[in-house]
Amino acid sequence: MATVVLLQAFFAFISVSANPAILRSSSFNFGFNVPVGSQTKVEVKNVRPYNTSKLYTITTRDNHLIVPVVAITDQDADSVVNGSVWYSTYLQGYVQYSQQLSQYSMQWQQSKNFTGSLAFANRGMELSELHSFDGNLITVDDKTGVVYKIRGNDLIPWLIESDGDGESPNFFKAEWMTVKDENLYIGGQGYEYVSPNGSVQSTDTMWIKIVTRFGETTSVNWYNNYLKVRESIGIRFPGYVTHEAVQWSDIHQRWFFLPRRVSTEPYNSEANEFKGSNYLIIADETFDDIQSVRIGDVEPSRGFSTFQFLPETDDNVIIALKTEELLNGTLATYTCIFAIDGTVFFYQQIAGHLKLEGLEFANFMG
Amino acid sequence: MATVVLLQAFFAFISVSANPAILRSSSFNFGFNVPVGSQTKVEVKNVRPYNTSKLYTITTRDNHLIVPVVAITDQDADSVVNGSVWYSTYLQGYVQYSQQLSQYSMQWQQSKNFTGSLAFANRGMELSELHSFDGNLITVDDKTGVVYKIRGNDLIPWLIESDGDGESPNFFKAEWMTVKDENLYIGGQGYEYVSPNGSVQSTDTMWIKIVTRFGETTSVNWYNNYLKVRESIGIRFPGYVTHEAVQWSDIHQRWFFLPRRVSTEPYNSEANEFKGSNYLIIADETFDDIQSVRIGDVEPSRGFSTFQFLPETDDNVIIALKTEELLNGTLATYTCIFAIDGTVFFYQQIAGHLKLEGLEFANFMG
Repeated sequence: MATVVLLQAFFAFISVSANPAILRSSSFNFGFNVPVGSQTKVEVKNVRPYNTSKLYTITTRDNHLIVPVVAITDQDADSVVNGSVWYSTYLQGYVQYSQQLSQYSMQWQQSKNFTGSLAFANRGMELSELHSFDGNLITVDDKTGVVYKIRGNDLIPWLIESDGDGESPNFFKAEWMTVKDENLYIGGQGYEYVSPNGSVQSTDTMWIKIVTRFGETTSVNWYNNYLKVRESIGIRFPGYVTHEAVQWSDIHQRWFFLPRRVSTEPYNSEANEFKGSNYLIIADETFDDIQSVRIGDVEPSRGFSTFQFLPETDDNVIIALKTEELLNGTLATYTCIFAIDGTVFFYQQIAGHLKLEGLEFANFMG
Repeated sequence: MATVVLLQAFFAFISVSANPAILRSSSFNFGFNVPVGSQTKVEVKNVRPYNTSKLYTITTRDNHLIVPVVAITDQDADSVVNGSVWYSTYLQGYVQYSQQLSQYSMQWQQSKNFTGSLAFANRGMELSELHSFDGNLITVDDKTGVVYKIRGNDLIPWLIESDGDGESPNFFKAEWMTVKDENLYIGGQGYEYVSPNGSVQSTDTMWIKIVTRFGETTSVNWYNNYLKVRESIGIRFPGYVTHEAVQWSDIHQRWFFLPRRVSTEPYNSEANEFKGSNYLIIADETFDDIQSVRIGDVEPSRGFSTFQFLPETDDNVIIALKTEELLNGTLATYTCIFAIDGTVFFYQQIAGHLKLEGLEFANFMG
């Protein structure tokens, strides 16, 4: 464990830490205010630094980059193996592209299943995102709210997130993950739950979770951010936008949103299937400056479920997955590669009855 | 969120924080060594202090103290309500005792059920401990490894613990909780899993979890501590001791163990039912000085499942629960009040088919 020193207040801290001469001459400043006499303490802690290791190795051949890619399924109710075991499929493949960023191809090579026996109301292993964080490959189950570290063929339970402000008895329905300032951001669909009579029942999915590498979660209300994002494309309540694909770009210092659904109409579960979106929405850190681009044509039954910036493209090229789930039982996923200016380079269906909701660059394991 | 300042090393910290004159004259010391140039960082953080509020109010009447008590069940497989809902019963009552600590009585007044739909392999809500921590009433499910905060009629999911060193795909089977140095300690039964041929298969239950009030978990290997505790009463492998009732006493600066089972024989699931223990084992902080006392007679089918020090007794009087679970389906719980010198004051069965594994002092809620 890290050594921890806890002190009542800033001046107490100084008095035990330095000699009086230093105290008197000091213009000592931590870069933040410690309210004197208030209910705060200064904690000084020796910690390990954030692990910046990449999980993947890029191969170069004939002026093409070959990057290993992994993807994970959320098969919804189809995730059940039997009454006490649930599964998610883990696909491993390569994305290959020219150094000029003009040619792209995709190849899936193998798959395996993660299984687990943890379930909420007999639903489980509905893994809805993948992201590298602090040297680990992280995934999250949108039924149980459990965040796992992937280790070979195992899922190691790491955190469980509760809904809304973190004081809810419900489990957080996580749909997107990204990393900003060495913290893991976990978000849900980001729209209001509406009762049958049309009134807002809950805005709990408009809170996000910010998690340190040490596992400390803070719940943050993103209501205003989600509103600004949807208002930027002219959508106001009772219209809605739902999210499963959000990334922070350190290079651009901007938020990137690929909504799954965009609707000018109030939420209706049947109509919702055909509200697939082709927007890419880009917001600055404060959500004051927001722009949008269209990615290909609107395909009503297909919406974005996850994306990543392709390595070595300065966050200018995105690889995304569009998914389709229909009341007739259809599950399908499409790979889409495009520049952030809207130029589409590659679009292809992934073979199989799969709804892939997470994508990351990682070497094959297990 | 707390403001966080992260700095590469001690001298970097000084150089941005103070003027050069201070740096030169400084005998600045944090009370711990920061290895210069090593893979560590100094984190300086403004945090809220530990919440020392008590969850209970003591009433005094006719020179007797009346303290509200709550207890919680782990009904094992009987916890199921239906195929997707599980429950645990929460009992609320009072313990009453004379200021001279000579007379004791117990009264259970009301109960309610917590229900939940999270399960591991169709087992859930097997709540095995209760403890106050940082102003919250905390409980833990020994099937899912989930630690909950109790709020009125709700359980708020807070943490999920994995077994062993924290890198196991298994969920931690938590059986006891205590607070030491403002951290929550969570432990399991603390003995080796043995394969049918008698060889040790796993010592994962001999790790404990130390959790900060911010939810950061550290896994600590207690193998040697558990061995010293059982060797103090002459038990060596393949004999065993299992724990569900462990507390740290700030007043005595000692660990208190009330083992559930003590056996000189190798583990055998049928014989195990009748290895109930009457030991109280008291260890200093380093487990070098260990003493033991006998509490009443050995009752082979009954072992300790939880305990607390009674308020206002200087941690000299314990209220404990002994439980009984038999292959014929019997579940029963007994309240036992005794001094740490072994004097038994009170012993009574709790009405109902209940296996109560957690006990804490808390005002009634909900």
